[in-house]
Amino acid sequence: MADYGQYPSRILEDAVDAISSLPGVGRRSALRLALHLLKQPAENVHHFTRAIDTLRDDVRYCRVCRMISDEEECSICSDRSRNRAQICVVESVRDVMSIENTGQYHGLYHVLGGIISPINGIGPSDLTIRELTERISSLPDPSGAEVILALSGDVEGETTAFYIYRQIASSGVRISSLARGLGFGDDLEYADSLTLGRSIVNRQEFRP
Amino acid sequence: MADYGQYPSRILEDAVDAISSLPGVGRRSALRLALHLLKQPAENVHHFTRAIDTLRDDVRYCRVCRMISDEEECSICSDRSRNRAQICVVESVRDVMSIENTGQYHGLYHVLGGIISPINGIGPSDLTIRELTERISSLPDPSGAEVILALSGDVEGETTAFYIYRQIASSGVRISSLARGLGFGDDLEYADSLTLGRSIVNRQEFRP
Repeated sequence: MADYGQYPSRILEDAVDAISSLPGVGRRSALRLALHLLKQPAENVHHFTRAIDTLRDDVRYCRVCRMISDEEECSICSDRSRNRAQICVVESVRDVMSIENTGQYHGLYHVLGGIISPINGIGPSDLTIRELTERISSLPDPSGAEVILALSGDVEGETTAFYIYRQIASSGVRISSLARGLGFGDDLEYADSLTLGRSIVNRQEFRP
Repeated sequence: MADYGQYPSRILEDAVDAISSLPGVGRRSALRLALHLLKQPAENVHHFTRAIDTLRDDVRYCRVCRMISDEEECSICSDRSRNRAQICVVESVRDVMSIENTGQYHGLYHVLGGIISPINGIGPSDLTIRELTERISSLPDPSGAEVILALSGDVEGETTAFYIYRQIASSGVRISSLARGLGFGDDLEYADSLTLGRSIVNRQEFRP
């Protein structure tokens, strides 16, 4: 008979180990979730695990922009009403969803699938940068097109933006990046000086 | 082509639905977890879902105390060094683990598997109360045994304790419940008056 350790059962401990491997889920929460799942009908639990297996095994990515998509071409790329001369370059699927939620952008996207990060061993070849340059070189009118580098404002984001800039600068497309400045509702007193400085340098005409 | 809704893919949406069905997990966190799982090797994700399926399908309960156990009899019930004349009645598996963690109790347990709660449609027959009464009636020396009702201090816990008390009072076992009072380190000023009142009535001899 096994010694009575922290967990009364190896099966329970395995489940807690698995659940606590999720980011932001500690072992106490994992135990709570495991005991919750134990109380659900087996059917519900199997539905839960099947949805996750299906996500991992059957998910597809748009052949054009690498967004998650159930079709070969995602609903944005196949939407002929969108501005096909604009490509917004983002790190992840979530960024596409965030920008779509603003309702302010009507062009296309390109999902890099990550960000250049030497510390995490992620180089340019791990991202879809080659696919982006091919996409740009096949544009019918590069000089009338725009690539928007919508990356994070941290070192990794800036590095990635600069790397992409060097790859595509010669193509003739207009290259822009997201405006940086005070957020709406931000208190000037609490803004960091880098952001505040950029806000002053890039000040905009006052349109009341 | 489907309309571009909040989610770019039905498969992703199904996974977010499933994950956000967990208690305390909102849709934003569920999306974050789904995209995290997508980035993991398929093997790791299958290990994760298999651990949960195994938990739900293969978990067993001790035939004596109904604690989760990989064996027919759990490691507490089969530990002959424990006091077999004490049965601590708790609501859930987690309560057993909490009390074990205190290191202050060396008797056996009985897991009710819930608490009497008319609002949630849980009556005495949904719990292991009959198994408890059978267990008590088969004790070799009831008058030398003790049943500790270690239930929550809320209405449902009190109701359940009172119901069990009526079922077993005639058996001759000594019946006790957890001490209620100020927690260690609690500030008297912030204690609720019910707890404080009980602490005064049930005051203990000062042993410095």
